[in-house]
Amino acid sequence: MKVPQVRGFSFAGLACGIKKSGKPDMALLVAHTDAACAGVFTQNQIVAAPVVLSRDYLRQDGKARAVVINSGNANACTGERGEKDARAMTQRVADRLGCAARDVQVCSTGVIGAPLPMETVTAGIDAAFDALGEGTMEDFGDAICTTDTRRKVRGTELEIGGRTVRIAGCSKGAGMIHPNMATMLGVVITDAPVATQDLDRLWRGVCDRSFNAITIDGDTSTNDTALLLAGGAAGGAPLSGVDLDTLEAAIEEVAGELARDIVRDGEGATKLVRITIAGAASDADVRVAANAVALSPLVKTAIHGEDPNWGRIIAAAGRSGAKVVPSEMKLWIGEVPIYLDGVWQGPGAESAAHDVMLTPDYPIRLDLGAGGAHIRTIFTCDFSADYVRINADYRS
Amino acid sequence: MKVPQVRGFSFAGLACGIKKSGKPDMALLVAHTDAACAGVFTQNQIVAAPVVLSRDYLRQDGKARAVVINSGNANACTGERGEKDARAMTQRVADRLGCAARDVQVCSTGVIGAPLPMETVTAGIDAAFDALGEGTMEDFGDAICTTDTRRKVRGTELEIGGRTVRIAGCSKGAGMIHPNMATMLGVVITDAPVATQDLDRLWRGVCDRSFNAITIDGDTSTNDTALLLAGGAAGGAPLSGVDLDTLEAAIEEVAGELARDIVRDGEGATKLVRITIAGAASDADVRVAANAVALSPLVKTAIHGEDPNWGRIIAAAGRSGAKVVPSEMKLWIGEVPIYLDGVWQGPGAESAAHDVMLTPDYPIRLDLGAGGAHIRTIFTCDFSADYVRINADYRS
Repeated sequence: MKVPQVRGFSFAGLACGIKKSGKPDMALLVAHTDAACAGVFTQNQIVAAPVVLSRDYLRQDGKARAVVINSGNANACTGERGEKDARAMTQRVADRLGCAARDVQVCSTGVIGAPLPMETVTAGIDAAFDALGEGTMEDFGDAICTTDTRRKVRGTELEIGGRTVRIAGCSKGAGMIHPNMATMLGVVITDAPVATQDLDRLWRGVCDRSFNAITIDGDTSTNDTALLLAGGAAGGAPLSGVDLDTLEAAIEEVAGELARDIVRDGEGATKLVRITIAGAASDADVRVAANAVALSPLVKTAIHGEDPNWGRIIAAAGRSGAKVVPSEMKLWIGEVPIYLDGVWQGPGAESAAHDVMLTPDYPIRLDLGAGGAHIRTIFTCDFSADYVRINADYRS
Repeated sequence: MKVPQVRGFSFAGLACGIKKSGKPDMALLVAHTDAACAGVFTQNQIVAAPVVLSRDYLRQDGKARAVVINSGNANACTGERGEKDARAMTQRVADRLGCAARDVQVCSTGVIGAPLPMETVTAGIDAAFDALGEGTMEDFGDAICTTDTRRKVRGTELEIGGRTVRIAGCSKGAGMIHPNMATMLGVVITDAPVATQDLDRLWRGVCDRSFNAITIDGDTSTNDTALLLAGGAAGGAPLSGVDLDTLEAAIEEVAGELARDIVRDGEGATKLVRITIAGAASDADVRVAANAVALSPLVKTAIHGEDPNWGRIIAAAGRSGAKVVPSEMKLWIGEVPIYLDGVWQGPGAESAAHDVMLTPDYPIRLDLGAGGAHIRTIFTCDFSADYVRINADYRS
């Protein structure tokens, strides 16, 4: 659906000169009044300066007036200078808005190890403010990309409790700039009114089932950040109960599409595969099994080769650490049962599964046979020779 | 060094018709008298029939008179029929030797899901007995291979406590036969006299530092097996104390080379990289960090591209779950310090590290900065477009 204009927010995205390519590299999003804000950040212990700062700011008051993102330089592994630069970015935005620096979220993505060119960045922030009136979420989304091959902007509009609520967002995926760090960023905004503590709980759940339910190669960057801002311009009291659940489902739809856009645009990817693990004895089991299957290079190359290689899939689950009961395991590729209760269903099933795998987008469902009700869905892509080519390229 | 003739053992390796290619597929090794035997088996919960049986037999008495291995068919995911077939293989060997079936170790490697062609297998075992006189460890080693591109046989000879001790072994690695399951097998024999319980302890330690310290793609097969047999023909009382330590070191040298042969012959591999993790707070930490770095597709593609991409290496350790102290982390590629105490050492270091990475075989050393004395070395290979090509090939 068309991305709606979310009331109460302004956008800018432009090229300020951080990227040598001349592509957009400065993104600014301003909430006209204080917006409730929630963030989910990288679990990597090596954390870029902007992540440290944004996380700390959010802990202080759970709200934001602006999000500023530069691409082309990750401001990661940059020591004290990096911390100072990230702070300076938020201060510049705060000065222009007349708010506190802690009400500005900052992200960076791109080259790691190199200091930010702060004169360029500061001029870029000023230029973004000048451009705020005309910008759209698309402009903002374009300016956070690195080597993404396509725009990732999504949105929806729905009625909740008699008012129209709009949601829009953008993401960027596994791009590469020397020395090559893939960063995942996602920003979603809504004009629904939501209390800060509800927003935080809602966003953690949504991210667990969207941005944290995708995998390209299992590497977590130093800069991964997903932000949700709720401005309240749709009017009325903060949502609760069923209304809040409705909002959560709509936000999850948008965040899920943005997350899947990242996988679709994965380096060298030609397939988007929805892997569902069921029949797990515990939540921990369903997670490790899903990750093992979705990350297995043997599974991912089989997906690339359109080879219904059930042995690789069940073996990945078997080594994952999750409890499996081999004689009760079941595997479907698309709607085709290829392995039931520990028994291969023969060449006919394999041939039908192969036909499913010729399509660009299909589900795989594995029941671990351990009898539990735990279930998890995770999206992965294939492993292609292009993935290797892209990632093995030594800088010229 | 030349592989010595280990006294007290006979070998056979021949083609009996399991493989359509006509390559050797039946391997038999016979100890002239009872040999102490230790085994380390796959940790996958989905376990092939021969592994279940061999593991059970070894638990009963820790000795063996023979090892029989067929290649071309893994006898995995074959249900009750598979169990019966594995038992029948050991019984056939036992009948020919006049020993108990439990004194025969059996392994299978190759296609999974298909039943063993038992007439062919039984005739193959009989033919192997007829050929026992002339066979060598090389013949045995050739017959356990699947799509290995080269023979993996190693050995050594040394003096221990006044007697000459000989050690020889073979391995097979990540080969592929539709539906594609990479199986690791390793068999080492010695004529040293060793008590069963000492042999078991020794072999677990050696395997942890050899066959279990290599990775190609992180997938553990249903059939992985490493066996050590000590026949005692070198004479004298079972080794103990310093003599036993000397034997352990020699066996580790042979097993380590056999393990590294597997990585060198990894699918599409062009580099053998020794990754050492130090400065870890615990043994568990050093293991998860080593695995994360050695398995990261981004690290492995950078190795392939000869790109000194320190960011990917430290980020993999940072997301591994092991405790790291970013400001104390240190990274060397070869002898080149490229990242010290959280600071990149500049383009000169990067260029020198690039030169190291042009060689086929070099070390990477990462200190997690967490201050502990725990250290672990693991061998990995690069990820090439050929790896994808080999593994994405759909059966014709």
